[in-house]
Amino acid sequence: MAETAIDHLIRQLARLPGLGPRSARRIALHLLQKRESALQPLLASLARVAESVRTCSVCRNLDLCDPCSICADAARDRRSLCVVETLADLWALERSGSFRGRYHVLGGLLSALDRVGPEELGIAGLIARAGDPAVEEVVLALGATVDGQTTAHYLSDALAHTDVRITRLAQGVPVGGALEYLDDGTLSAAMRSRRPV
Amino acid sequence: MAETAIDHLIRQLARLPGLGPRSARRIALHLLQKRESALQPLLASLARVAESVRTCSVCRNLDLCDPCSICADAARDRRSLCVVETLADLWALERSGSFRGRYHVLGGLLSALDRVGPEELGIAGLIARAGDPAVEEVVLALGATVDGQTTAHYLSDALAHTDVRITRLAQGVPVGGALEYLDDGTLSAAMRSRRPV
Repeated sequence: MAETAIDHLIRQLARLPGLGPRSARRIALHLLQKRESALQPLLASLARVAESVRTCSVCRNLDLCDPCSICADAARDRRSLCVVETLADLWALERSGSFRGRYHVLGGLLSALDRVGPEELGIAGLIARAGDPAVEEVVLALGATVDGQTTAHYLSDALAHTDVRITRLAQGVPVGGALEYLDDGTLSAAMRSRRPV
Repeated sequence: MAETAIDHLIRQLARLPGLGPRSARRIALHLLQKRESALQPLLASLARVAESVRTCSVCRNLDLCDPCSICADAARDRRSLCVVETLADLWALERSGSFRGRYHVLGGLLSALDRVGPEELGIAGLIARAGDPAVEEVVLALGATVDGQTTAHYLSDALAHTDVRITRLAQGVPVGGALEYLDDGTLSAAMRSRRPV
């Protein structure tokens, strides 16, 4: 067996999220056996992404251009700015089609344990953007975790002196969620925020 | 969002075995966010494999050299030839460390439905190799499926005129297997081939 290049490829694949040694081996075999139809297109696609992706200097999104296609899109609402933790969250919101404003990607959450402070997250840049007179609302779309809520709290304090409206995502029963399997915190939040029908 | 290169990469990843759109997106995000530590090494590894892997002209194994490292290894037993369906089977046997001879990779099984005949599998090459006076045994390490057994039968017929001993893998209870969950066929085979303790 090729101890060098093939094993090295399997090791690289096994480090990807969701993959382990067995699935990495399966993928490597597939790529080796279909070099024309699988390996070459994947290689070309990876190379193109590797050479062309950059971080947007405005919102820290990753895209092929800078400013990114969302920041550069004149059709998107300049009045609304949505703060997300990661690119994955931005993609999830884009897929939902529920937000037509612009984003700001923190790239992490405040965490004393992990020594992540406001500088690491570029919060100064966010405050500067929120100071733009066109911006009317900042949506804090951060996770309902301890770090997420800490960061949301910090940001709402940091933005308190501006005129922008600060909102956060609603908490409650997820669509399709059966009450009996929901945790107490979610049920309490949903009950507290109950709305007239 | 980058509709072009990033989406294309996700589509390519989603076509790999065991991955779907969600896991492909997760991997793409990981690669985008860790370009130095994940994307570049994977790219380099894929490129190296893509340019250097070739099919062994002797046994049809895939390796970085031709003849492959198994065929070229003088320490391996020339007397024993193990016929496997795929590269995956060869890798599995090598991992088990239970065979020290050489291999012959068919690349498929005889199948009238899929129009796979002896020519597609290079069986003439196998017969020629079995004709080498050094070869004393051909192990048919083919799956216990209908096509696997058909192919094993065909091969034992085709090799009948030679002096080589033709063997196949034992069938029986897998190691760690509980009898109550085994299928009837396996249990019958294990009972038929029972051995003195």
